[in-house]
Amino acid sequence: MAKVGLILGSDSDLEIMSSGIQMLEQLDIEYEVTVASAHRTPDRVAEYADSAADRGIAVIIAAAGWAAALPGAVAAHTNLPVIGVPISSSPIGGLDALYSMVQMPPGVPVATVGIDTVKNAAILAAQILALSDSDLAQRLQQYRHQMRQSVEDKAERVQQATKEH
Amino acid sequence: MAKVGLILGSDSDLEIMSSGIQMLEQLDIEYEVTVASAHRTPDRVAEYADSAADRGIAVIIAAAGWAAALPGAVAAHTNLPVIGVPISSSPIGGLDALYSMVQMPPGVPVATVGIDTVKNAAILAAQILALSDSDLAQRLQQYRHQMRQSVEDKAERVQQATKEH
Amino acid sequence: MAKVGLILGSDSDLEIMSSGIQMLEQLDIEYEVTVASAHRTPDRVAEYADSAADRGIAVIIAAAGWAAALPGAVAAHTNLPVIGVPISSSPIGGLDALYSMVQMPPGVPVATVGIDTVKNAAILAAQILALSDSDLAQRLQQYRHQMRQSVEDKAERVQQATKEH
Amino acid sequence: MAKVGLILGSDSDLEIMSSGIQMLEQLDIEYEVTVASAHRTPDRVAEYADSAADRGIAVIIAAAGWAAALPGAVAAHTNLPVIGVPISSSPIGGLDALYSMVQMPPGVPVATVGIDTVKNAAILAAQILALSDSDLAQRLQQYRHQMRQSVEDKAERVQQATKEH
Amino acid sequence: MAKVGLILGSDSDLEIMSSGIQMLEQLDIEYEVTVASAHRTPDRVAEYADSAADRGIAVIIAAAGWAAALPGAVAAHTNLPVIGVPISSSPIGGLDALYSMVQMPPGVPVATVGIDTVKNAAILAAQILALSDSDLAQRLQQYRHQMRQSVEDKAERVQQATKEH
Amino acid sequence: MAKVGLILGSDSDLEIMSSGIQMLEQLDIEYEVTVASAHRTPDRVAEYADSAADRGIAVIIAAAGWAAALPGAVAAHTNLPVIGVPISSSPIGGLDALYSMVQMPPGVPVATVGIDTVKNAAILAAQILALSDSDLAQRLQQYRHQMRQSVEDKAERVQQATKEH
Amino acid sequence: MAKVGLILGSDSDLEIMSSGIQMLEQLDIEYEVTVASAHRTPDRVAEYADSAADRGIAVIIAAAGWAAALPGAVAAHTNLPVIGVPISSSPIGGLDALYSMVQMPPGVPVATVGIDTVKNAAILAAQILALSDSDLAQRLQQYRHQMRQSVEDKAERVQQATKEH
Amino acid sequence: MAKVGLILGSDSDLEIMSSGIQMLEQLDIEYEVTVASAHRTPDRVAEYADSAADRGIAVIIAAAGWAAALPGAVAAHTNLPVIGVPISSSPIGGLDALYSMVQMPPGVPVATVGIDTVKNAAILAAQILALSDSDLAQRLQQYRHQMRQSVEDKAERVQQATKEH
Repeated sequence: MAKVGLILGSDSDLEIMSSGIQMLEQLDIEYEVTVASAHRTPDRVAEYADSAADRGIAVIIAAAGWAAALPGAVAAHTNLPVIGVPISSSPIGGLDALYSMVQMPPGVPVATVGIDTVKNAAILAAQILALSDSDLAQRLQQYRHQMRQSVEDKAERVQQATKEH
Repeated sequence: MAKVGLILGSDSDLEIMSSGIQMLEQLDIEYEVTVASAHRTPDRVAEYADSAADRGIAVIIAAAGWAAALPGAVAAHTNLPVIGVPISSSPIGGLDALYSMVQMPPGVPVATVGIDTVKNAAILAAQILALSDSDLAQRLQQYRHQMRQSVEDKAERVQQATKEH
Repeated sequence: MAKVGLILGSDSDLEIMSSGIQMLEQLDIEYEVTVASAHRTPDRVAEYADSAADRGIAVIIAAAGWAAALPGAVAAHTNLPVIGVPISSSPIGGLDALYSMVQMPPGVPVATVGIDTVKNAAILAAQILALSDSDLAQRLQQYRHQMRQSVEDKAERVQQATKEH
Repeated sequence: MAKVGLILGSDSDLEIMSSGIQMLEQLDIEYEVTVASAHRTPDRVAEYADSAADRGIAVIIAAAGWAAALPGAVAAHTNLPVIGVPISSSPIGGLDALYSMVQMPPGVPVATVGIDTVKNAAILAAQILALSDSDLAQRLQQYRHQMRQSVEDKAERVQQATKEH
Repeated sequence: MAKVGLILGSDSDLEIMSSGIQMLEQLDIEYEVTVASAHRTPDRVAEYADSAADRGIAVIIAAAGWAAALPGAVAAHTNLPVIGVPISSSPIGGLDALYSMVQMPPGVPVATVGIDTVKNAAILAAQILALSDSDLAQRLQQYRHQMRQSVEDKAERVQQATKEH
Repeated sequence: MAKVGLILGSDSDLEIMSSGIQMLEQLDIEYEVTVASAHRTPDRVAEYADSAADRGIAVIIAAAGWAAALPGAVAAHTNLPVIGVPISSSPIGGLDALYSMVQMPPGVPVATVGIDTVKNAAILAAQILALSDSDLAQRLQQYRHQMRQSVEDKAERVQQATKEH
Repeated sequence: MAKVGLILGSDSDLEIMSSGIQMLEQLDIEYEVTVASAHRTPDRVAEYADSAADRGIAVIIAAAGWAAALPGAVAAHTNLPVIGVPISSSPIGGLDALYSMVQMPPGVPVATVGIDTVKNAAILAAQILALSDSDLAQRLQQYRHQMRQSVEDKAERVQQATKEH
Repeated sequence: MAKVGLILGSDSDLEIMSSGIQMLEQLDIEYEVTVASAHRTPDRVAEYADSAADRGIAVIIAAAGWAAALPGAVAAHTNLPVIGVPISSSPIGGLDALYSMVQMPPGVPVATVGIDTVKNAAILAAQILALSDSDLAQRLQQYRHQMRQSVEDKAERVQQATKEH
């Protein structure tokens, strides 16, 4: 049974979504992926959001570019937490998508992460799920430990590479 | 029978809407006004847009601030022309609302006018309706003539006031 | 007899205009294309706009980059609806063109669409023309149906591609 | 036992925090509030975040202005979900705080909501907690119902006020 | 015979124009002031610009806010140097007016000065006229000398006020 | 004897300067080019500006990127008109250079043209010089005529290429 | 003997400077204050910077608004560390001053602090001086201790005020 | 014994750091380089900053992109001067990193230099160290002399290359 629902505004965003999917798999979190557009298929988005909880979805990640109404449109139809990922596909570097997601009016929040950072959306979803899944909480701790180790390894290499001054 | 449907994201936008309503009345265009929120009442927005044409609406003006999904949500449910008015109610001067409206993805346009310029939305609606209403076309010509005259009167006054240098 | 007049600020914008032209052809809308510059050929722009209605033009699409005065200059000379397409040809991603078009002062609106989205300008023009052309209205409905179908097909493919997790 | 921890970068942000506190109380969610600065009291922030889970905190809301490092500094010390609220206290309307929160590098997300929208932070926290608290889930549904009702009441009033045209 | 023509997009800009007018009078430069709108009275702008040289105008100062096409529209009709002053009357601080003026396409320049700095427009006009008017050149030198003196007086006062530390 | 002095903040800007130099040659205007940096060679800039008038320079064009103090530093040392060209060499598209030039404080203007538009700087210089050089004024008229002709030729080609719809 | 030189672009910036002066006095650092303008009194700025080291100045704080060339102009004339404070006196919130200071080209840095944060400029100056003044280093430690204490006191008060939920 | 500590948020920033390292070597300043992340390894950053003074570090240069909390996190743990270098690695050209560094709240400054200008960070560090190292002060004077000479050589070449007009 899927836990995280990923929804893309366009299949051209699938490649950028891959780092998030990889993260979910690394953390052993079930997920499903689909495509829906707030503007081209509004009913599909509404149905998706309305039925998400019943299909076992606990957290929704919605990624979109331009006037990125997708996460807000999902959030308008469910009380599940919705994570928004602004995509930098427009000529103004994704600022349009960022503002369209993060500046939600009172009552209906979208948990927005950085431009193109689907990996962080996956980790945020995991943090939310881990509140009632102690095994996942441990895998998150491990991941963080690996991140720390990786930074320390890089530090070591950089210190070696630059110490002969 | 109403011709122009005005839809506000929040009743706090009603005051700013008044210059547009005044313009519609000056041009003798029938209209109706309502409030609906793309995020708080998405079904209401969908129903409004789905039924608009049948109720005799030809052009829809949607005004909203912040992550202003309203005009796009309306446009997703109708092929009537939708005019979006970004409102400057957020701390970043309405740039969020502007980007959320104007940067619509391919397939579903919103005809965006300037920040807070509901009067221009009304005139644009009139221009669209005037394509098949020659009386309205004439009233628009008159209005433009008055504008021109008003500028010339101001020019006269300014020239008088500054000519004694 | 042409229905939509496309006017480019520079012939270097012709390529970006092609997706709009294609859309007009797909919707079987008559059009004409020309080049005129608000700054280099202001009289040509004025004549174009002054005579547009008489030549059977109902909607004008004007695309330009930088300090993109073209749509406003056209709108100053006609009461036909004018659609502006900001082009991202400057070093600041088209924000200059967007602000130069959308922020029109009271009295003379420009219906602005997203940066480089000439296709949306064409659809908006079609929506306006369809108000008095029920055949076109049907073709627009069909186009919207195709868009919806296309998103659903993509969703199907993405779901297939990602379900083996 | 507190469920939501609110942490302010400065006590001058307390007033803006009040709408969020009110929302938490309306939804009957336990909370605690404190002040800590990522730059003036980094150890306090680290201790707060390190011990939050053990004190029963499930979700942290961190609000700050300017170079708003607070939510990121909290998130660096815990795997609990951290919600960031950018505050518009600087001369550039809170864009500095927004970018400082939302643009987190890979590995450590902050769930950012709109500038000054602490109420939305509270609702997002509630949505997260409601995943394992069906009573809260119902209260959230009720709140959403009230919001919808409130918009419909406003719509009614606006329609009455404007129908005499 | 007037030497500098000041042209305002709106008579609401007259107050902000006054510091420029004062500067022209201080430098004993003849001027005329009028109001014309690139969008509401395009023909008036064209006639103004076409006839300016014949009326003895050597330099034109055009001030406008929002999508400030005025200086560009003037420059399109004359080879006299045109100085543009962006006015900060819109909700985005005059950035729209600045971009609409300064980002002129190749072939038709506008000499843009800072937002609301009509005084600087007047001085720039004086510098241009002074190239063939040695008396004016001397008055400009005097003005600069006074500016320098004024800064030195302020420095003196500030040093006095702060030296008792 | 040189009439226009071009001054570059860096020799890496020379290539971008070439379109301006070409324009000056096309208009048969004498010029000189040099390199000086407001920050690396402030005395050189001061000497350049102090002596410019005596060397026969009437107008100075200063191009620079980043915190582009060059035109302002030149203007601080001369009452000759100074034209500033912001160069887009920084990671933020030249907005830094634009603001550093155009937003000059009261008393010392810089005539700023569009980002990277050195050609327009050359034409503006020509317009200034043409006030006391009727031959140059005629060459400018010719150039404008050619521009107009070139747009009309392009219009012709585009109309041909698109009329077979 | 003065250690820190404060230089203001305009005496209207003196009020905003006061929090920095207070900080210097609290840390018992000698200072002098003067006014000089990079554009109105360039020679004064050059002389100030050229002679600063000989007058015992070790660090210079330069505050200015708009196209804020002052810190860069000072830095061009001395190898003393120069701290720049952008002032938010323009209609665009001090972004012009920020970019004009921080984006210095290679070779001549300006140590830029936040918009209007003269207090931070004073602390940065103190940190630099403290490298060779262990008493000052201790006073800085004390100040930091007080800041920490102040945050903790505020936390205490806020926790008291909000614990009755 | 190292004098300057360089700290990178990510080893992907090492390449951009190289121009700064080169500058430190040219000025014969001892340095050490390491990698630490404010968000992935906050304790490592705290330890680094806490122990820096004892290891002989006098000035710290911290470079990071995105929500670049690194320099602020270092500054929160030491009273040594901290120089921040925003890196342009995000889709919005480094504006996020710039705002995250420069807009530090009162009490804890970061000396911010231009986007990607690590070389300037190195020179600023040298200027600070030179206050108590007259040999280094001389090397800085020499470097400045070379810069000036280099500009003059370029000027010579450019004047030669363009004088045949």
